[in-house]
Amino acid sequence: MQTVAIFGVGLIGGSFALALKKAGFEGRIIGVSSPATLEAAREIGAIDEALPAAQAAADADLIYLAQPICRILDTLPQINAWVRPDALVTDAGSTKEAIVARAGETLTRCAFLGGHPLAGKELRGVMHADADLFRSRPYVLTPQTDANMGLPLAITFLEWLERIGARPIVTKPAQHDRVVAYTSHLPQLTSTALAACLNGQFDGAKPAFWGPALLDTTRLALSAYDIWKDILYTNRAHIETALDAYIDQLQQLRAMLGGSDLKGVFDEGAAVAARLRDFVQPPGRLDAK
Amino acid sequence: MQTVAIFGVGLIGGSFALALKKAGFEGRIIGVSSPATLEAAREIGAIDEALPAAQAAADADLIYLAQPICRILDTLPQINAWVRPDALVTDAGSTKEAIVARAGETLTRCAFLGGHPLAGKELRGVMHADADLFRSRPYVLTPQTDANMGLPLAITFLEWLERIGARPIVTKPAQHDRVVAYTSHLPQLTSTALAACLNGQFDGAKPAFWGPALLDTTRLALSAYDIWKDILYTNRAHIETALDAYIDQLQQLRAMLGGSDLKGVFDEGAAVAARLRDFVQPPGRLDAK
Repeated sequence: MQTVAIFGVGLIGGSFALALKKAGFEGRIIGVSSPATLEAAREIGAIDEALPAAQAAADADLIYLAQPICRILDTLPQINAWVRPDALVTDAGSTKEAIVARAGETLTRCAFLGGHPLAGKELRGVMHADADLFRSRPYVLTPQTDANMGLPLAITFLEWLERIGARPIVTKPAQHDRVVAYTSHLPQLTSTALAACLNGQFDGAKPAFWGPALLDTTRLALSAYDIWKDILYTNRAHIETALDAYIDQLQQLRAMLGGSDLKGVFDEGAAVAARLRDFVQPPGRLDAK
Repeated sequence: MQTVAIFGVGLIGGSFALALKKAGFEGRIIGVSSPATLEAAREIGAIDEALPAAQAAADADLIYLAQPICRILDTLPQINAWVRPDALVTDAGSTKEAIVARAGETLTRCAFLGGHPLAGKELRGVMHADADLFRSRPYVLTPQTDANMGLPLAITFLEWLERIGARPIVTKPAQHDRVVAYTSHLPQLTSTALAACLNGQFDGAKPAFWGPALLDTTRLALSAYDIWKDILYTNRAHIETALDAYIDQLQQLRAMLGGSDLKGVFDEGAAVAARLRDFVQPPGRLDAK
């Protein structure tokens, strides 16, 4: 792996570039992004040079698509004419079924390996990029076929993921999308709905007082819609199912308010919350449910 | 104010004692609690001595009830026979209507001023007490009558609250309980329900991967039921209303998943979340809605 082209040098693309360099990557890192972003990315040392998409795609061993999901869906057919047959295209989109399907249909001249680093911040843009963003975080890979994981560049990419401290997990696109509906998209919607509900109840003003609990549970609500639009669009069915399960749980909890059964729900919730914290995710293949 | 008796020397009671001392209080601080707690409280320098409830209540200018809500409800009639007529009893319970009503009925021999510091941690017990716990946090006061705020000891207590860095806010018990149903109790239930929902969906195991968003939104779910039991019991009607509004918001949001109206909810949520962060609560009387 000598040349990496990063399409979309924002928080994730910029952090991946910085992480590679910190881990000892000595090849070329090319950025494909808006002029302002490219200048910022060069200033912080994330990329070595900026090129037009066609030339970047033609030069690269590894093409890393870190754009919003719908931009990735548009980029896949575009780059097919430009890529080298021995190149590997991967992406960092937050949903995988739509992207892997599009790659299967349109990226016919080289291999594709879907990816999703479960890392991030509410802050966006390459100015917030961080070489340690992926450290100790799950990095889900969704190969179209198991054989894809054995390709020389896929093996090399996996080695770099481990060098930057990520914890690779291999699963199927549909399994990925079901899991993140519960572990990422539902948490976002619980927070957005809570903040919006407060707005309705206090007539667009603020409540008169609140404690740290409300700051915690509304932090995700700060996220911008234009990041979430594509996620909600491409994972709608799983998110509807997750929302239904959550609303059902809330209704059960409401019905229990008078009685002692509520203890069971609190204990169950506390046990799950504790397990999410004491668990170090091992690298490797997991049977994601 | 020469002598303060703290009933229930846990996280809140212990922190209040430490905060008073740090702010220059040179009087006596008496603890009323279990023997193990009293020993720990004396070791960290929170209390000067331990006394039986009757003697502590008889000695104190200020009686600070920092027990669980239902213990406060039991303590109010008990201490009535022991208190000095010029004493002030206050409390730190998380709901106010039930406590203020009980004080009105049973604490006839001295004045009462309901209180609720919106401060805390998931950690309990005097070993986690912190002299800065109340710093920059709202401290709600719910006097039975406005005249109560003018009592010499109430004025002194308010001065000490300001010295320990808290931001006193005066409101009515019912207004307090409505506001905290949305800003404290609803956030707790959104988190407990999310963690319990995950448990149901992943058969009591863990999902295969998750990111920081899930850790954020399940942190409150770590809280113990025996703290929440009394809160839910004494604020049930307001919590039911808040849960209904939240479930309604989630259902609206679910119905919008296909369309562009969702942007409005995200923008609204982000604006509220930002306002909760940029606002420094001024001390003084607010018309809590």
